[in-house]
Parts: sequence; C-alpha cells; structure tokens
Amino acid sequence: MTAVGVVGNPRYAELRALLTRLVERAPAHGFSLHAEPDVARLLPDRLPILAHGAPLDLLITFGGDGTLLRGARLLDARPVPILGVNLGRVGFLTTATPESLEDALADVARGAYALEVRKTLMSRLLARDGGERSVERALNDVVVHKAGVARVIPVKVFVDGEELGQYSADGIIVATPTGSTAYSLSAGGPVVVPGVDALVITAICPHTLAVRPIVVRGSSEIVLEPTPPWPEEVLVSYDGQVGAALHEGDRVLVSRSPDAVHLIRLGEEGFFSRMRRKLHWGDLGGRQVRGGETGDR
Amino acid sequence: MTAVGVVGNPRYAELRALLTRLVERAPAHGFSLHAEPDVARLLPDRLPILAHGAPLDLLITFGGDGTLLRGARLLDARPVPILGVNLGRVGFLTTATPESLEDALADVARGAYALEVRKTLMSRLLARDGGERSVERALNDVVVHKAGVARVIPVKVFVDGEELGQYSADGIIVATPTGSTAYSLSAGGPVVVPGVDALVITAICPHTLAVRPIVVRGSSEIVLEPTPPWPEEVLVSYDGQVGAALHEGDRVLVSRSPDAVHLIRLGEEGFFSRMRRKLHWGDLGGRQVRGGETGDR
Amino acid sequence: MTAVGVVGNPRYAELRALLTRLVERAPAHGFSLHAEPDVARLLPDRLPILAHGAPLDLLITFGGDGTLLRGARLLDARPVPILGVNLGRVGFLTTATPESLEDALADVARGAYALEVRKTLMSRLLARDGGERSVERALNDVVVHKAGVARVIPVKVFVDGEELGQYSADGIIVATPTGSTAYSLSAGGPVVVPGVDALVITAICPHTLAVRPIVVRGSSEIVLEPTPPWPEEVLVSYDGQVGAALHEGDRVLVSRSPDAVHLIRLGEEGFFSRMRRKLHWGDLGGRQVRGGETGDR
Amino acid sequence: MTAVGVVGNPRYAELRALLTRLVERAPAHGFSLHAEPDVARLLPDRLPILAHGAPLDLLITFGGDGTLLRGARLLDARPVPILGVNLGRVGFLTTATPESLEDALADVARGAYALEVRKTLMSRLLARDGGERSVERALNDVVVHKAGVARVIPVKVFVDGEELGQYSADGIIVATPTGSTAYSLSAGGPVVVPGVDALVITAICPHTLAVRPIVVRGSSEIVLEPTPPWPEEVLVSYDGQVGAALHEGDRVLVSRSPDAVHLIRLGEEGFFSRMRRKLHWGDLGGRQVRGGETGDR
Repeated sequence: MTAVGVVGNPRYAELRALLTRLVERAPAHGFSLHAEPDVARLLPDRLPILAHGAPLDLLITFGGDGTLLRGARLLDARPVPILGVNLGRVGFLTTATPESLEDALADVARGAYALEVRKTLMSRLLARDGGERSVERALNDVVVHKAGVARVIPVKVFVDGEELGQYSADGIIVATPTGSTAYSLSAGGPVVVPGVDALVITAICPHTLAVRPIVVRGSSEIVLEPTPPWPEEVLVSYDGQVGAALHEGDRVLVSRSPDAVHLIRLGEEGFFSRMRRKLHWGDLGGRQVRGGETGDR
Repeated sequence: MTAVGVVGNPRYAELRALLTRLVERAPAHGFSLHAEPDVARLLPDRLPILAHGAPLDLLITFGGDGTLLRGARLLDARPVPILGVNLGRVGFLTTATPESLEDALADVARGAYALEVRKTLMSRLLARDGGERSVERALNDVVVHKAGVARVIPVKVFVDGEELGQYSADGIIVATPTGSTAYSLSAGGPVVVPGVDALVITAICPHTLAVRPIVVRGSSEIVLEPTPPWPEEVLVSYDGQVGAALHEGDRVLVSRSPDAVHLIRLGEEGFFSRMRRKLHWGDLGGRQVRGGETGDR
Repeated sequence: MTAVGVVGNPRYAELRALLTRLVERAPAHGFSLHAEPDVARLLPDRLPILAHGAPLDLLITFGGDGTLLRGARLLDARPVPILGVNLGRVGFLTTATPESLEDALADVARGAYALEVRKTLMSRLLARDGGERSVERALNDVVVHKAGVARVIPVKVFVDGEELGQYSADGIIVATPTGSTAYSLSAGGPVVVPGVDALVITAICPHTLAVRPIVVRGSSEIVLEPTPPWPEEVLVSYDGQVGAALHEGDRVLVSRSPDAVHLIRLGEEGFFSRMRRKLHWGDLGGRQVRGGETGDR
Repeated sequence: MTAVGVVGNPRYAELRALLTRLVERAPAHGFSLHAEPDVARLLPDRLPILAHGAPLDLLITFGGDGTLLRGARLLDARPVPILGVNLGRVGFLTTATPESLEDALADVARGAYALEVRKTLMSRLLARDGGERSVERALNDVVVHKAGVARVIPVKVFVDGEELGQYSADGIIVATPTGSTAYSLSAGGPVVVPGVDALVITAICPHTLAVRPIVVRGSSEIVLEPTPPWPEEVLVSYDGQVGAALHEGDRVLVSRSPDAVHLIRLGEEGFFSRMRRKLHWGDLGGRQVRGGETGDR
C-alpha cells in the first residue's frame, strides 16, 4: 500500500466531489488515504485522520499554491513527493487540475512523473538578547512587514554581513526562485528561473523611489532588522501562512535550508510555457503582431 | 449615397476577404466606397481611389489602432465618424471585429451607434531661430526619442513655462487620455479615463530611477527640448507614425488641439470592461480568489 | 492677537528646541500659542492646551507630512492656514524647515505667503444593511488594505456605478492629486500635478500583473467593496492615520469633499522644483549628461 | 616602465586638465603613456598614439561607464587592469574621481588595489542561412531594438532551446550582473549582485503588460530572433556602443564569453554602499524615518 496524505482548502466547493473521485480510485492504485481533519469530515464516510509525523509516500493537495505550501509545511523536512491539484487561479506549484485528476493519479501510481526538487529557506527569529525565538522553513518567501494602518516600517537589511541599506517600506520580501513568481512578483520583482542559485530581495512599496529588487547569491545570509523608532506592529510571515509578531530588537536571519520540497511534475510542459500560461503572458507565443504601422499601438 | 472611405493594413491576410464582404453589403446600405491605393488594388474589380480631401461621411479602417490612427490623420481635422474593424491584437480604438462586420455596417447605416469625441494634440516643431518647421496633430501621443544605438538622450521638459526637469532617457512621451493606453502604458504610465482633462508625460527608460510619470492639466503647454551635447539622432513621432529628425536647437511644443477625432462605438460595453478585456485584466472580473490561505500566492 | 495652534511629533528630538524658539518669537508677532497636550508638556513652562474646536487663525505643525495631515484632521473642515515645519525626510506638504523657522514666522505674521487650497476626499463607510458606520475626510488618500499575514484581499472597485474590476491585492489606494506623491507613488502611481481635476486608483501589489494605476475624473464616486470569501482582517485607513476594521459586507464610498485644506507656501519655489527636490529627482535639473557614448550607461 | 593606455571622452571639458595632471605624475610612477588620437591631441605636447594591439599593463579611462566600456572593447580579450576615472553622473564601473586622481595613480603604481574580474558576453550574429555575420563581446549587455519611429518590434526569445516567448516591445536586453545596473535597470530590471551566476532578460516597453524581467542561469544560451512581418529597422547594440542592422532572418545568439574584464577597485567600499551612492539610494542608510504617524508619507 502507498500511504497518501490529503490536504485541501475547504473553501473550494468542488473539494467534496474531488475527494469522492479520489476515494473511488484509491483501491485500484493501492492508495491508503489519510486526510487532515477539515478535509476528512467532508465525506459521509469520514476518511482516516492524517496524524502529525505519520509516514507518507505521497501528499496530494487540493487548492492553490497556498494549500500546497501548507502541505509542504506539514511534511516538515521529509522528502515526500507532492501532487498539487489546482483549484485556485494561478497554482504555479501545482501540476494537475480537477479535469485531469484520474489521469494524474494513474500516472503517479505507475511512477510516470518527474520530480522537481526545490530548495527552501530557513528563517531564524532572534530576540534582542540573541536568543532564538523560533526557526521556520519557507519554500516561497520570508516577509517582514507592517500590520495595521498604512504606515511604512524602517528595516535594515544586511547581506553576508554587509549593510544593504535601511529601507522605509510596507515590508521586505526574501524570495527563493520558486517564490519569485509569488508575492515578490506582485511587488515588482523579477521571475527567477528554477535552478538559478540566487535569492531575491524585494521591497514592498518602498518610500525611496529609486529602490529596485536585488538578486543576491543563493548562499547568502540575509538579516532583516526593524529599527527604532519601533513601529507598533511588525510581523514576519513564512510563505504567507504562519506569522509571528516581532518584538523590539528582534532580527530575522534568512538563509538556505538543507531541506527541499519535492514537487511532482506531469506532462512535458516546460517552465517558460507554464510561466506564460500562469502569468497570462500567453499572447507572447500566440498570434503575431501584424500591425506594420505601430504593431497595434 | 453615403461617401465611405476605406483604409486598411495590407499585411493582414484577411483584409481581402473582409473587403469582399464590405463590397457585397455596400449597395444595401447606400455606401459609395473609395479606398486608398494599396487597399483598392486588393480586389479584382478595383475599388475607386480615395482622393485626398474628398468629402466623406464615414471612414472604415481595417487593422489595429495603428491603422485607425493613420486613417484619422488622412481626415486632417474633419469630424468624420470612424468605424474601426480590429484585425490586430489590442485595437483599443476599434469597435468591430471581422466576425461582427455585417452587424456593424448595418448598425452604422441606421445610425445605431454612439460617437466618442476624443481630443487631439497639436505639436509644433520649432527651429533654433524660432521658425516653425512643421505642425502635426496626434490623437495618442507625441514622442521625442532616440534613434540608432541604445543610448540615452538628454531632454529638458517645460510645463506652462516652468521647467519640469532635464531627463536622460530613451525618450519622452506626451500622451492624451486616449493615448494613455498605448505607448505611455508600455513605458509605465497610468491609464487615464476618457474625459479626464489631463495629459501624461512619461519618460522611456529614464536614467534617474526615481522618475515617475506625471499627469498635468489638459490645457498645459509642454515643451520638449533636447539639449547639448547634441546626440547623433533624435526623432519626433506622432502617433507612432510620422516621424521627423530634430536638428540641433529644435524644440517641440505640444498643446491641446481644437480638433477632435470622432470614434464610432457600437454596443453597450463601458470603458472599464473594454479596458479589462483589451489589456488582459479579464481575470479581475472573473473567478473569485478563493484561497483563504494565500489567495493562491 | 493671532490664535495659533501647535501640533508636533514628539519623536523628533529637536521638537523641544523648536518650541522654545517659537515661544521666544511669539510676542513679537502677536501669536497666542496653544498646543496639543503631548507638545505642551515638552516645555518647563507648559503651553496652554489646544482645546478641540477652539477658534484658530493659524496652525503650525512640527514633523513630517504625517504630522501636518494629523493637524489638518484636528481642524475638521475649518479653513485655517497651516504652516508645516518639516522635521521628516520628505515633507511634501510642508514649506518651512527648522533652519528657516524665524523667517517663516515673520513672513506668515506679515501675510507674506501664498495659500494653496487642496481639495479633500470624503469617505463613507457603509454597513451591509446600508447604514452609515462613519464619515471621514482625507487630504491624501483613502486606503482599503489587508492587515495581518501577507495575503491578498479581494476587492471590487466601482467608478460612477460602473465596475472597474475585482482586484486581488494587498490593498487599493484612492488618492487625491495631493496624495499622489505619498502612498500611491510608492505603490507605482503617477505624480498628479495640483489642479488636475482627477483622482488616482492604485492597487498595492496586485495579483494580476497587467493591472496599472488608473486616473479618473475628480468628480467620480468610487466604491471599494471587499468580497467573499471574507478575509480575516480588512482595514480602511485615512491619510495613513485613522483606521477602522471592515466587517463582512461593508463598503467604502469615496468622493470629493466640499472642504479643503489651506496650505501656506513661502518663497518662490514651483511645484516641479519642489517635486524634484523632495523626490530626489534633483539630478534632472543638475549636471548635464555628457557621456556622448552612452550617456554614462 | 609600465605601459599605460589612456582613453577619454573629449566632451568633458575637464579632460584636458586631468591629462595634464596625469602627465605630471607619470614619470614618478614609471608610467609610459599612450593615448587614443582624440585624447592625445588635447595637449600641446601631444601624447604618443595608442596603437591597436600594443602591449599594455594598465588602461586608464576618463569619462563615464560608456568610456570605460569603450576602453574594454579596445583591449579585445586581454586581461589588462582598467582604472576608471569618473567624469559622468553614475560611473558604476569606475573607481576614481578627478579629486582622487593623484591618490589613485599612486595606489595603482604600488599595487594597492583589488581586481574585480567581471564576466562578459559573446554575441554571435547569424544570417538566415546560418552564416556568421559577426562576433562581438559585451561587458554590460546585448540589446536587440528598434530604430526609427516609435513602433514595437516582434522578437522571439529562446533560452537553452526552449521558447521563452514572442515579445512585442521596443527591444530586448540581455544583461550580465555587471550590466544589470545599466540599461536593464532603466528598463525595470533588478540589480544583480556581482558573482551571481545569472543573466537578466529585460523587455523594453513590452506591449504585454504582464511581462516581467527574467533571471536565467549564467550558462544559458539565449537566442533573440526578430520575426515577420519584418519591421523596417532592427538593430543590435553591444554595451550601447557598436551597433549593426539586422537583416531579415538574422538571429542573435548570446552566451557567456570565456573572456573577462579586470576592473581596478580602490578603497574599502563594498558593492552595496557603492550601489546606494551611485543609484541615489543614499537615504536608505541615512537619517531614520521618524514619523511615527506615517513615516512622513
């Protein structure tokens, strides 16, 4: 039997029907299903509960990238392949759709897939006295940002011990190449192709207009340090999910983690084709610009 | 009979078939067709040639916005309604498509359309000695820009006599609200809703990173003045069509023109809906973001 | 006697010394000073407290634009001239500096100044049942935005009853021309020259990459309506100061207010010169680009 | 004797005085000076002419980055250290100023400097029949771009054989990390720290608004291929200097060159400090944001 964990975002109305289809196919593929509580209770015959730390051979996520990222967190650092079924709008990390669910399950069951190994970040939250408040992993990004009313926060950023600068901004994003197509992109950052050994530091709505996103080496250690006068509320978020409030004097240290996330990829589609499709660059590869006069401008 | 001028972009392969359909429907609508030479010769029975300055009741353009803008130039300042049939990718100024051609002709023939009156710019090119080298009109934009290799040009910009600044950039765009969705948008400018009494000044790839597009009053007079050291090649373009090389000491004065362009609008679609559709913001109005976790990020 | 209100940001260490200088000069100019409590207590001989609604002939603010905006709020809608003394980094709305304080006081006392009348926004917060929860004024901007972790919020935006679109973003800014150089600019919006009859709608980190800031008519009514699934925390902020949490079904209606703020302007400096200086475009007017080869690129 | 080549941009008025100071110090440092013709003739006692391919131990450039890049081209691929004296506005690649000239010469003469080895690009221009029209090197960037009036050009881009997309834009920039602070930055690209093994592909004013700069592996081969309908004028530029017109069917292949440019660095200033200073992010490290209220917004 293949031990399969199931997580999902119950806000999607189609989740129940998809689970039913998954349950129907499970025996044929030798899948033993365990689901997180909110998902397990969606079916009349409740699925067994996925216990924390239970051994898994496969994780299936139903939702957008947010759900997949949450699933990855549940794995801690275990190298379990993740099959993302996209119910959201973008779903950059996912590979299957509701329409392709049965085919995807069959492909995964017979091993007909590729694995993309994505590096992750380790983020250490240090108190003023140097004590470690927490350690978190992130696949997409670590973000230090304001909460509450629309005010800037002052944050010093250091890269490998050199001061990059003191930003006044809504926040600072440190993103992996994987995360470069998520929050960092919305904040003006570049797309970084998987496999480039780099991290991106992107300020959110920086006060100084000349500021631009910065691409640093993947091996760099980045320190985010809010500075006095301490704003009322400063938060740190990991993959847009877990958050913690920073106390005065806290610092966030971000560096590459030895752990990786293992994404299942089905089909032949390359990164650029997926990027064009997901980011609505589709026209780029579509109909040619014909307007000899102004190219339609 | 309704005197109808026809212009088109011969690079679109479907132009010939569209002309044939137009010719078939013309008698029923009382259209007397005259076409520009490159279009006229596309049919075996050549269409009569559209003479410069001939009286017109309607102008039909087949192509993208570039073709419509070229058609508007042919009208000089005459208030002839323009029916744009979109063969290009965006076609912001157009209102019909090849699929809707027959319906559009019928609607126009029976007067079932709205007219959008769009203000235009007057651009005067002055030599160093103050002499007027030329006067041109533009519906979208007047652009002073480099030619040749990838170097910046220095341009002083004045608004109503006050110096806005000296830019180092690939060029400077002065756009109407109509033109705000054309070149200026590609260069980072905002969308300006039709009817806002304003012009936009947008620098193309400015050297100073803090520079941002500027929205000024629609009644403003804007002067674009390349400065020494005189770069090898500086051009001025009107609606991305007509261009002239600037000589050392030349200045370009841009202000509102008393003339307007009269665009035919068919159907009920509002500006914002058209904008979302043309600029691929379509998702904005589409499926809801569901991912409670990260909204799919 | 001239009734003078004094507000200030006590976080600036120089505030005490500036107050002392103000108190010294007050008798010569016939100023009767009243200060808000946090300011009044900074001097050993405490200043009289500024009572809410007390008649005023002049308001002096010591701080950045934030302090001036807070001062303007204290005036409610009364047309009292405001003298902003800049202690912050940008201080776009201010006109004096600590260095020029004595000169500024003398100029104001003898009426040697210009008044800039800046229009304001009225923002009505409506509950699901149509009831009015609150009415606020803003000089710079009204912002509906997320709080808490780094997630997008879905917001429908309507302009004069037409749906502009449904955004997924960190927030939506509606800014006056005055506010166009504040938060909206950091979020990618254009500079709008004072006197342009327009408002700017700027999305903060929009999920859809094609989204651009939109300039609409100044007389437009704009509705910001967060949509289901209701995110955990949505706030509305006025001038980055006062905030309120939105409840499910709440809507924010933004339109022009009949009230205005009256800013004192000293000296001859024009808007563009001030803009270049405050936004660090200073080079634009400075040394010429000389590099004939690549303009220094 | 140390063989020293001298290049300079004669448009800078101070060039003559700087040359005089250089000539005065040359004997003390054992410098044997040879200058390019336009520079040599600036002094009454003309300097010896720098012969193409003559052996050099040091190259001094007077001007901006453009002049330094031109100097690097003159060296072909020889690993000669370059001392850049900045007369321009930014001068990212330079290390000395007119004020520090004598100190810089002394430091270089006694070997008190660091060398930054910057990788370069090799660009091959292939004709439709596969024949090689030319091979060029570039330190900053290879740009395929329009000439003439303000129209977009259609360009297909391939990365390691996979199609990235077909752009409609004013042009496409392929930049090294060194070039990331030059043209690519003006076009919206990120800063890439030296040492990151990556190239940046940045579209200039792309027609599709969702397009973002892309960071690819440094070992990637990038193909830029203008597509039909062939626009009138398409150029390729190397470091904004040498240009060639593309013929229909031509392709530009860009990949890492085995050759490098050796930049002299004086003093202790790190990359980020230089970046902040050159790009006017200086405030970032400067006075703190104090405005507790809105951080001065």
